[in-house]
Amino acid sequence: MNQEPLYLEDLHVGQRFSSAAHRIEEDRIKSFAAEFDPQPFHLDEAAAQASIFRGLEASGWHTAAVTMRLIATGGLPFAAGAVGLGGEIEWPRPTRPCDTLHVESEFVEIIPSRSKPNQAIVRVRNTTLNQNGEPVQVFTAKILAFKRP
Amino acid sequence: MNQEPLYLEDLHVGQRFSSAAHRIEEDRIKSFAAEFDPQPFHLDEAAAQASIFRGLEASGWHTAAVTMRLIATGGLPFAAGAVGLGGEIEWPRPTRPCDTLHVESEFVEIIPSRSKPNQAIVRVRNTTLNQNGEPVQVFTAKILAFKRP
Repeated sequence: MNQEPLYLEDLHVGQRFSSAAHRIEEDRIKSFAAEFDPQPFHLDEAAAQASIFRGLEASGWHTAAVTMRLIATGGLPFAAGAVGLGGEIEWPRPTRPCDTLHVESEFVEIIPSRSKPNQAIVRVRNTTLNQNGEPVQVFTAKILAFKRP
Repeated sequence: MNQEPLYLEDLHVGQRFSSAAHRIEEDRIKSFAAEFDPQPFHLDEAAAQASIFRGLEASGWHTAAVTMRLIATGGLPFAAGAVGLGGEIEWPRPTRPCDTLHVESEFVEIIPSRSKPNQAIVRVRNTTLNQNGEPVQVFTAKILAFKRP
């Protein structure tokens, strides 16, 4: 954090980063779900209690969006921004109202482009943790990185 | 669409579904990005034109969230809701302002639970297409499915 922007030359496998923290409010869980994931267990206490989640939980896509916010606002200081091509995502446990999340990131692989010598794909494992240190999301992303211009 | 809710007994590999359509407005692209992915190429025309995207594009997480909305509102009529465990996501091309998206889904694998005989994990390939039939996202999800109670 508060780090110089990183170019491809600055990256190595095993490098780690930690984001700021963000608290997820119950109202935003419900309004995000109303727009993007209108299922009872994201919208209504009683329905959520009766579901397999046994309580209100954020949409996984809300957790993913907050994770992106934390990465984009200092968690991963790529010089050209965090341009993601995709990756593997999993949600090992629910995000609950008033959880405070932060993201720990580690570079797991750097794959040079064969056709574009000034760029590479960096595989980054981004683990989103709640205030108890429990992972609520693991997103192993493919992100484009560029050499210094 | 307008289909009976599906239980595990009703599912087979190769089954296909198609969602309703949703138009993504430029204002929502910018406001979503301001909250969740505040990078210049999602927020500002001029910066986006100068970026590798050559024009404003939605955050991939905005595309993902709209895809979830389309799935949850009829695209995938699972009786117990679309409870996702995770999956593989990729964004082969940008979502642009005023794109109209819909989702085509196909069951690619049904994996019975060894410990819970009333449930299975269904692998579903959800392809989000723009108005030109071009894929903007492919999300191969693992979704929980349950037998009739």
